[in-house]
Amino acid sequence: MPSTPAEPSALVQRRQRQVQQRIVAAASDLFAARGFDAVSVTDIAARADVGRTTFFRYFGDKSEVVFAREQEMLEAIVDAAEQQRPTESPRSVREAVEQLAPIVLDLCGRATADPEDYARHVRLLEEHLELRARDALKLQQVADRLTEVLVGRGADAGVAVLAAQVALACYQTARRRAQAPGDLVGQTRAAFDQVLVLGAS
Amino acid sequence: MPSTPAEPSALVQRRQRQVQQRIVAAASDLFAARGFDAVSVTDIAARADVGRTTFFRYFGDKSEVVFAREQEMLEAIVDAAEQQRPTESPRSVREAVEQLAPIVLDLCGRATADPEDYARHVRLLEEHLELRARDALKLQQVADRLTEVLVGRGADAGVAVLAAQVALACYQTARRRAQAPGDLVGQTRAAFDQVLVLGAS
Repeated sequence: MPSTPAEPSALVQRRQRQVQQRIVAAASDLFAARGFDAVSVTDIAARADVGRTTFFRYFGDKSEVVFAREQEMLEAIVDAAEQQRPTESPRSVREAVEQLAPIVLDLCGRATADPEDYARHVRLLEEHLELRARDALKLQQVADRLTEVLVGRGADAGVAVLAAQVALACYQTARRRAQAPGDLVGQTRAAFDQVLVLGAS
Repeated sequence: MPSTPAEPSALVQRRQRQVQQRIVAAASDLFAARGFDAVSVTDIAARADVGRTTFFRYFGDKSEVVFAREQEMLEAIVDAAEQQRPTESPRSVREAVEQLAPIVLDLCGRATADPEDYARHVRLLEEHLELRARDALKLQQVADRLTEVLVGRGADAGVAVLAAQVALACYQTARRRAQAPGDLVGQTRAAFDQVLVLGAS
């Protein structure tokens, strides 16, 4: 076991996080002011007061900054799932969907915590086909992560895949139904409620 | 009303379709032989025995050729929906999902009609993140088209959105569960069957 104390590492992590957030904020401001295409990595780095090398330590390209939050969420899923870990393995698609609902609602809450920032993000996607495509792919990665969470809880793999895709369907529905960022959580909950009584009528 | 007879237009359409299919087949062969990145539009045009100008009359860029089939399907949805038009408007999410199932199964059948070609397409997507992203976006466009079909049949807009996303979830599940192209239709049907009894247990 290494004898290095935990604090320095935590401090480094916090500083890294601050730099990353500064880059994201700088990019978001510039995209909103000038449009995605007119902003370069150099512009973003300059506004965030970091070098280009630092930028590329955190992000592969300009588009990746747009999905920094989605990437964070992807990483947060396992933590969220751990915190809400139920005592029983999901035995049916219904139970699996029920177990995913609070995780997805938690993600929606985080995504819209800053409504103005979320609205800007949505506008950026609307304007760029390539960004919409990356967004659609990110959400499939979210679904695949949710599948892993269920399998980790002992669900059958086939059940887990379907439940995760249904959970994503609820989120996608809410995005289309929501009139404002503040509606997203409520609309996602409503979609889950509707899906969970699908075969009951 | 124009006096031009219908035949020439149909003939022109058939020729255009043949040219388009030749471009798609040429691109598919070249991508499989050399890899997506090593093939240029000029290469594809040469192999299909057409000029670059002709290529760009049919496709915006190299990636678009990969999704020619998806684009065709997108256009086929409205026709498929017309042919299978039920007499009643869907009144619930369940009825709406039931109405979408045969349309989606029909699309799956067409997609895998040439299993070897479908398998090549899947391999291409696996190798390229940008193509996976475009694929994910195309499928969202399919869902939005399915929503329109339901609204056209008199469904409530909110019901239609959820039903279309659930139908897409069944397809995405089948893609992950299917071991071979020949399994896709059966797996999609199985996913619909499971989803439609979600709240019954």
